[in-house]
Amino acid sequence: MSKATSTPASLEPLAIGIDIGGTGTKFGIVDRIGNVLFTGDLSTKKHKKIETFIEELHDKLSALIATVGGAGRIRGIGVGAPNGNFYTGTIEYAPNLPWKGIVPLAQLIQDKFQLPTNLTNDANAAAIGEMMYGAAQGMKDFIMITLGTGVGSGIVANGHLILGHDGFAGELGHTIIIPDGRFHEGTGKHGSLESYASATGVMLTAKEVLAKTKDKSLLRDIPLDEIDSRKVYDAAVQGDKIAKEIFDYTGKILGLALANFVMFSSPEAIILFGGLTKAGDLILKPTRENMEANLIQVFQNRVKILVSHLRESDAAILGASALVWEMP
Amino acid sequence: MSKATSTPASLEPLAIGIDIGGTGTKFGIVDRIGNVLFTGDLSTKKHKKIETFIEELHDKLSALIATVGGAGRIRGIGVGAPNGNFYTGTIEYAPNLPWKGIVPLAQLIQDKFQLPTNLTNDANAAAIGEMMYGAAQGMKDFIMITLGTGVGSGIVANGHLILGHDGFAGELGHTIIIPDGRFHEGTGKHGSLESYASATGVMLTAKEVLAKTKDKSLLRDIPLDEIDSRKVYDAAVQGDKIAKEIFDYTGKILGLALANFVMFSSPEAIILFGGLTKAGDLILKPTRENMEANLIQVFQNRVKILVSHLRESDAAILGASALVWEMP
Repeated sequence: MSKATSTPASLEPLAIGIDIGGTGTKFGIVDRIGNVLFTGDLSTKKHKKIETFIEELHDKLSALIATVGGAGRIRGIGVGAPNGNFYTGTIEYAPNLPWKGIVPLAQLIQDKFQLPTNLTNDANAAAIGEMMYGAAQGMKDFIMITLGTGVGSGIVANGHLILGHDGFAGELGHTIIIPDGRFHEGTGKHGSLESYASATGVMLTAKEVLAKTKDKSLLRDIPLDEIDSRKVYDAAVQGDKIAKEIFDYTGKILGLALANFVMFSSPEAIILFGGLTKAGDLILKPTRENMEANLIQVFQNRVKILVSHLRESDAAILGASALVWEMP
Repeated sequence: MSKATSTPASLEPLAIGIDIGGTGTKFGIVDRIGNVLFTGDLSTKKHKKIETFIEELHDKLSALIATVGGAGRIRGIGVGAPNGNFYTGTIEYAPNLPWKGIVPLAQLIQDKFQLPTNLTNDANAAAIGEMMYGAAQGMKDFIMITLGTGVGSGIVANGHLILGHDGFAGELGHTIIIPDGRFHEGTGKHGSLESYASATGVMLTAKEVLAKTKDKSLLRDIPLDEIDSRKVYDAAVQGDKIAKEIFDYTGKILGLALANFVMFSSPEAIILFGGLTKAGDLILKPTRENMEANLIQVFQNRVKILVSHLRESDAAILGASALVWEMP
């Protein structure tokens, strides 16, 4: 029997975290205490076929793997993806991804890389990242909401992710907040949170508000099809009334949705993450006010709304990589 | 050291379960395998003061306790009550109870009866009852919705009740389904599920629909202030078009709400319980259809809507009594 020896720091096992979004995919090599050592990215949406996506991912990641000393140092791969199912390792009917139906993603990656691979919902991965390394450290009950191109969510209760009976829990972006409201092209449903409180939603609200009034606005100087949430933000910080109204409206709907989520699982905090949070109090203030206004008394002034302080580029990678350390 | 001896059946320890509702309170003495041996009830709403409520409860329960051989055989008391908090043993700001503010109910009962007492939300208690003895046996992920005077809920995920960070999780009746919708007198909020999908809600919908149209209806033979959900049901089973429309509308809102709940915790089943479920397919059919219509594809045709088969008078008592067996 040989003596147990501690591995030298340079040879500590590492994990790969992959975050697949509707537009782009980010990946990184991460150590056990949450340092993101190397990162890279590729386009998701240009790959109509999953096979070419896996090819490009493999090409790019292989270079990083070589840098850290080869696949022998990699313990495994964790993947966060929209509609990713931890139980089955598949992506199923993801409205915002180019691949339709059921995609056996974990198996495809495992076969290509010859490394054990776990998959979960992208927002679940982000929630694990926040719990291990971010704003939710020490919390047993919180909800993570990602406000990007779409709206994702990860829910932790009693210290564990709520996965549901089939692994698909936590699709809060698709909950209906305004019955018969705005149409969502990806799902065919009306009035979901995502159709209002995402970057896409802000852009659509901007177009609606501009069409509805004749009021002056800096946004009128921008061609209608070039307006996005960033340009609305730029106008709002310059004091533009219409731009502020757009964020107020977004916060009204987001706040109402958050109130409903609070009355479901009574979290200690809601952690917001993603592009829209960069608007700061422009979005947070109306969100907080409208959340409180819709809560029954027992929940009022008890739930924190926090903005993730993890670097946006790192959080989802960290969360995805955390799946690796939980592998048997 | 004495030999371990099994207690004779007649002296097996028993539990008391108490279910406090807005109108009435039911209580019973229950054995470990879920037989409800003796039951009784009292009015909740006639007691403006908690002290007189406790007095009457004690008087009535003491008679039952004597019947089974005295307090020595009672292991403890479990209580289900609106806004009941398992962590603190208090009822806090319950909109449908006569006692305002924070009521230390578990302590008051424990002091009066000199028996260990646990308290939880009435619908949480019902959920535990379903999991131990009813339609949710063997399930790890389900949602219990009680459709009575109000709407209560208990949520089980990963095999455990979701209590939230402060014990108040699962107030789904107060989630806002129709923004700026019907006013709820108890909470001061607009458009909550409870203001539509409760017995009270059906009564209010009936009055609205009757006022809005001139169509003939059996309900027009009833004085407006005597219409209740039971009379709407009686008219509907006789084929009354307006009465059916009232249930369709109720099911539309309930179905939308259930879709949102499914997209939160992805349960294996939703268990419905309480007065409104007696309307059977009149309410269940539109509820199912509207739930499916509002679910994104990944959840469609996966979630069962079941009606509790426990006797209504027993379920909440059973659930409350189950809290006793979990006492240390």
